[in-house]
Amino acid sequence: MKAKQRLLERQKAISSRLCVGLDTEISKIPPFLQGSESPITTFNASIIESTSMHASAYKINTAFYEQYGEHGWQALKNTISMIPNEVFTIADAKRADIGNTSSAYARAIFDDLNCDAITVNPYMGYDSLAPFLEREDRMVIILALTSNPGSKDFQRLISEGKPLYQHVIERVLSWNSSASIGFVIGATHPDELSMIRSYAPDEMLLIPGIGAQGGDIDAIMKANADGPVMINVSRAIQYAGDSEDFGEKAYEAAQFYKERIGFNT
Amino acid sequence: MKAKQRLLERQKAISSRLCVGLDTEISKIPPFLQGSESPITTFNASIIESTSMHASAYKINTAFYEQYGEHGWQALKNTISMIPNEVFTIADAKRADIGNTSSAYARAIFDDLNCDAITVNPYMGYDSLAPFLEREDRMVIILALTSNPGSKDFQRLISEGKPLYQHVIERVLSWNSSASIGFVIGATHPDELSMIRSYAPDEMLLIPGIGAQGGDIDAIMKANADGPVMINVSRAIQYAGDSEDFGEKAYEAAQFYKERIGFNT
Repeated sequence: MKAKQRLLERQKAISSRLCVGLDTEISKIPPFLQGSESPITTFNASIIESTSMHASAYKINTAFYEQYGEHGWQALKNTISMIPNEVFTIADAKRADIGNTSSAYARAIFDDLNCDAITVNPYMGYDSLAPFLEREDRMVIILALTSNPGSKDFQRLISEGKPLYQHVIERVLSWNSSASIGFVIGATHPDELSMIRSYAPDEMLLIPGIGAQGGDIDAIMKANADGPVMINVSRAIQYAGDSEDFGEKAYEAAQFYKERIGFNT
Repeated sequence: MKAKQRLLERQKAISSRLCVGLDTEISKIPPFLQGSESPITTFNASIIESTSMHASAYKINTAFYEQYGEHGWQALKNTISMIPNEVFTIADAKRADIGNTSSAYARAIFDDLNCDAITVNPYMGYDSLAPFLEREDRMVIILALTSNPGSKDFQRLISEGKPLYQHVIERVLSWNSSASIGFVIGATHPDELSMIRSYAPDEMLLIPGIGAQGGDIDAIMKANADGPVMINVSRAIQYAGDSEDFGEKAYEAAQFYKERIGFNT
């Protein structure tokens, strides 16, 4: 089954378009867990157990694991293996390189870590994404208009009357792809999202930037015009509690965001 | 001492602007080593021993290590620790993400792996690079015009009369940076390199794409007009031999490329 179809079925089964971010840093987890033997894996196990009934997907940002070296990479692998099969998994890795190098990244993320999807950076063009796009049972989520302030520096440059991020979306959609396609659009840009839905109405969008980054759920859901989306929330769920009841707090936060996002079929 | 100064002193000390790529894949190393206990570390130890006298820098592409999971990350760390202190080390990681995430990548590459430099992707703009640019003893090498065919897809889009890669170079040079700055310019674009040297005459350039990718050394050195450069060669040195004498073959290939590149003070 195509990755997009698997994701949509999961969303329908639990009436949720919430994506839960697992961007775990030892300094931010409840203090009583920080001294345990495998603090990241232990913490993530509880978060997954407490939130998976509300999560259409988990997004794991590789940076937070890489900072702990080979132990972090092991925790990353452990974390992904603990996620129930029916929940979609996204490696938020923002990779891309020349062809033979991107092939190695595809093996790392799709084969070694066995994620359903990866985020990729379009700057290096078609052949840098081809090794990901070849994988028919996976999803490739391309950065288009990101949630951060620096999204204005290059992504909004106008060429031939259109911003760079629109060139990215249109060009990617013109390429052959066996994989399912998605785009990252930051929740901080509802006006642009409205425009994007006019030329990409049915594309899956991964929307980060809710919560700690200040995106407004109502504005973004209105602009989205019922297109397929995953709304990511990371810190506001993961770190909702900082004592023994952190799992319960995460459960409540996930439920809150799932309901705020809403679900229409 | 600033990273750029350290690199220039190394280049002067051995009259070499060669950067040796360590993009190790188990399937490509000599067959007699493939079954050894730590094939990547064992192979890289020999390549480093055989080429460090000719190498101003080593460039290690993280993708090739990540494909082997936590063992690959351990091999990556082992490899960097085996490189003599006086040789410059570049993590060719092409990272960048929102600010707090890029901070984690900076810790991974500069602190856990202790590399002198990292390659980064500019698509997400200033705040995605700031955590790297803050590090005054390191070098941040920004993708500008890459060596691959896909470099035409977005990097050459014209905005306000200039290609995107020129916007990247000029914008980056306008930012405050404590770190030394460098840019990636593919060896496959000598005409553009000439132009780039007209507005960035003294910037350090990392030039990949010689050898397997078809870049022409003479054309590129002429276009460079004696600006500071590292010319990277990976496969043509690493895989120069495939039997017991692979170290000797790598030594000879490194010497050949060092001399072909030449050195003028």
